[in-house]
Amino acid sequence: MAKDFTKRADDYSQWYNELVEKADLAEHSAVRGCMVIKPYGYAIWEKIQAQLDKMFKETGHVNAYFPLFIPKSYLSKEAAHVEGFAKECAVVTHYRLKNAEDGSGVIVDPDAKLEEELIVRPTSETIIWNTYKGWIESYRDLPLLINQWANVVRWEMRTRLFLRTTEFLWQEGHTAHATKEEAIEESEKMLEVYAQFVEKWMAIPVIKGIKTETERFAGAVETYCIEALMQDGKALQAGTSHFLGQNFAKAFEVKFATKEGKQEYVWATSWGVSTRLMGALIMTHSDDDGLVLPPNLAPIQVVIVPIYKGEEQLSQISTQVQIIKSDLEAAGISVKYDDRDTYKPGYKFAEYEFKGVPVRIAIGPRDLENGTLEVARRDTKEKETLQQNDIAKKIKHLLENIQTNLYQKAIDYRSEMTHKADTWEEFKKILENNAGFIYAHWDGTAATEELIKQETKATIRCIPLNNKLETGKCIYTGKPSTQRVIFAKAY
Amino acid sequence: MAKDFTKRADDYSQWYNELVEKADLAEHSAVRGCMVIKPYGYAIWEKIQAQLDKMFKETGHVNAYFPLFIPKSYLSKEAAHVEGFAKECAVVTHYRLKNAEDGSGVIVDPDAKLEEELIVRPTSETIIWNTYKGWIESYRDLPLLINQWANVVRWEMRTRLFLRTTEFLWQEGHTAHATKEEAIEESEKMLEVYAQFVEKWMAIPVIKGIKTETERFAGAVETYCIEALMQDGKALQAGTSHFLGQNFAKAFEVKFATKEGKQEYVWATSWGVSTRLMGALIMTHSDDDGLVLPPNLAPIQVVIVPIYKGEEQLSQISTQVQIIKSDLEAAGISVKYDDRDTYKPGYKFAEYEFKGVPVRIAIGPRDLENGTLEVARRDTKEKETLQQNDIAKKIKHLLENIQTNLYQKAIDYRSEMTHKADTWEEFKKILENNAGFIYAHWDGTAATEELIKQETKATIRCIPLNNKLETGKCIYTGKPSTQRVIFAKAY
Repeated sequence: MAKDFTKRADDYSQWYNELVEKADLAEHSAVRGCMVIKPYGYAIWEKIQAQLDKMFKETGHVNAYFPLFIPKSYLSKEAAHVEGFAKECAVVTHYRLKNAEDGSGVIVDPDAKLEEELIVRPTSETIIWNTYKGWIESYRDLPLLINQWANVVRWEMRTRLFLRTTEFLWQEGHTAHATKEEAIEESEKMLEVYAQFVEKWMAIPVIKGIKTETERFAGAVETYCIEALMQDGKALQAGTSHFLGQNFAKAFEVKFATKEGKQEYVWATSWGVSTRLMGALIMTHSDDDGLVLPPNLAPIQVVIVPIYKGEEQLSQISTQVQIIKSDLEAAGISVKYDDRDTYKPGYKFAEYEFKGVPVRIAIGPRDLENGTLEVARRDTKEKETLQQNDIAKKIKHLLENIQTNLYQKAIDYRSEMTHKADTWEEFKKILENNAGFIYAHWDGTAATEELIKQETKATIRCIPLNNKLETGKCIYTGKPSTQRVIFAKAY
Repeated sequence: MAKDFTKRADDYSQWYNELVEKADLAEHSAVRGCMVIKPYGYAIWEKIQAQLDKMFKETGHVNAYFPLFIPKSYLSKEAAHVEGFAKECAVVTHYRLKNAEDGSGVIVDPDAKLEEELIVRPTSETIIWNTYKGWIESYRDLPLLINQWANVVRWEMRTRLFLRTTEFLWQEGHTAHATKEEAIEESEKMLEVYAQFVEKWMAIPVIKGIKTETERFAGAVETYCIEALMQDGKALQAGTSHFLGQNFAKAFEVKFATKEGKQEYVWATSWGVSTRLMGALIMTHSDDDGLVLPPNLAPIQVVIVPIYKGEEQLSQISTQVQIIKSDLEAAGISVKYDDRDTYKPGYKFAEYEFKGVPVRIAIGPRDLENGTLEVARRDTKEKETLQQNDIAKKIKHLLENIQTNLYQKAIDYRSEMTHKADTWEEFKKILENNAGFIYAHWDGTAATEELIKQETKATIRCIPLNNKLETGKCIYTGKPSTQRVIFAKAY
């Protein structure tokens, strides 16, 4: 597998594309910009979903489901929102097909034109707030803490598997609150949930911050984000949480009666992560031999490969493997025993290495005699021979070790790729050489942000939360600044 | 709640509609025919999903995700399929909106017309078999056992919450096999999985059978189904499993190399259940006081309501409730403690009764003294006072008892509502009086089936699996028949 596989240093982008397809994670579909998420890729997404869903429920949220379609006029109700989202959308204009009279196939029935076109949801604030209008009457109905797992569509011109696709899967939380403070607290709480998840489960270190006005979600008062750094020195926004103020409540006339009987507009948040996380996962840990998965999200944590000649040896090994497998499974470890006789061990080793299975166990006749196993870890490629006794405990420890190691490696890489720039020359030089995160002073204007972007392609990823205040001069205009912000080229 | 609630005997259809909305299960959205599944309804759907997903995985299936959109031309590739599905569809014709020049809002950009229209999937056989073409080369790639959880759209003119909506949620399994026998075995296996699930989890008895040619899935060689009987004597198809023969393999040119090196077309199945199951669940068990849920699918299995005066009493009760709650939860029971002080116990009793919570526990100061609890079951409305010791065991037993009782009640109802008809007069009389399932002889022709449907609205629900052979005469034409089939009016 790895044989025809492009190296990161040669062409990072090509490496990524090949990896996604060859590791059976996803592929392009026949529909422009839409992907097929293959079973192995989907199994990782299911693990992401399960853990996030658990964390959402632990923080008091419930799931619901809102329509796929949004009446076109809804998008226009919130002034900033329409600018951001009423652009590249899939538009449903008709509701019926019929046979062509010339027998050439089916055609759209011109008589079945919708009075008002429907937009396939690019995000659901509008349809949800239109619904909340009927659900919220008094302070007793608040807070409303709802999440939705759904597919959304944004018509993208240039697509890349997981990173930017026309249709993608995501979750979108939409909450309603009685006070501004509570809504802000909710946005920050969910940012923290995302950060915890991405760091502990995906083993990806992130920086928490807020977006500049330019990069803010269309319709938000404040957008919080977590930013991760990929191996090519480009940043990737891994999740966002928005404090929406009363913008959508005003657009959809959602008021509530306070305890004192006054009518007030409701405060809102929304927050989401998507299958884009799969892209972050792949790009953070993988190497020139294929995928590397953190054990916490690996569909197969341990694969066992028998090394044998003839059926009798296989049968002896299999008997022993069943015992080991049960031990491991009893300890909550997901194990695959690959006893296919259509492939040789070497082929299997290469396959699981490419698919990022964290631990590979090989067992042959000599191991049976000695009560040993050969254990190989995917992250460091180290191999060791272990005694079979207490194997579940040893493997559990090894998996934890791999999880920690991957996170630490990513932290180290990020430190190495994080720089300060104090002059424009310095800034440009860093971007030319190795990119990464650049802490630099900025005069706080959208105009300067835009000029920097035009000249270097670098954008302000975020203003870190609890940022250290420090007087300085904007790297571009020399105007006074009170804090450094983080610049990077980004996905 | 139950006060303004229509009785089943007065207007069954109205009773259903009110129940769905008042029990917070779902509501109509602003988009014609699309529903909003509310948190309480969605929590039941999540339980349905979780159990089915487990059963699919236990039978060797994996999940994946295929695109929402299908190129229009794909629908035409399988001759029967296009007749069934290329009708009432949501058609995407454009991919961009723009601001109207007169400032009146957003309009569809006429320059962004798609070359080929996209259909929002009504079912995914075509896009999936187009994908399988790239995945299947040899017998080693078979069987391919894949399921997808997704939303689908069929533009319905007359919609009812859960039972018939334009957009609905479902799962669709799509499998590929090397032999006809294996594909048939798979279709039958999945029918059995559905039957097991619906009977054991939903407590709904079903009849397994095959559909007549008229009622067959468009593109199938054989459609297997499970049929349930609702409280108004109408049947509801609860799930279908299709043996697709080589129809889709031929339409999309999917061949595989056999062990002997020959090229053969692949054999296929597909099978699905949808949010329609929610309708079956509601209509089978609920009564004039609201929803009745089988414990296996109830989001809240036990609700505990404190009966108190003043904060001190509440605090004493709450202390004891926490112990009981922990005991119950440790036994795997989902418990809600409702200590809201904004509502009185009577209000809470009515609310949980209406929402179908299987067991309600009330605890007051006297119970504290006596070490007792008042336990009420939703299905029979019986109440009893129990000692608190061993409470988890007692409640677990009670929940099992309720689950069994609901199933038995449904079985009894179905027996009562199942008839044989040997003459056309008898047949019509049964349908006029109380409907239900009617076992009757039929001459086996689509023409007769259609005439019976036109005259009585009854359709052939299925030819039961392993049906008893019995010579007789068709109730409509008097022509010879070898077996009885099941007729009913249906949802």
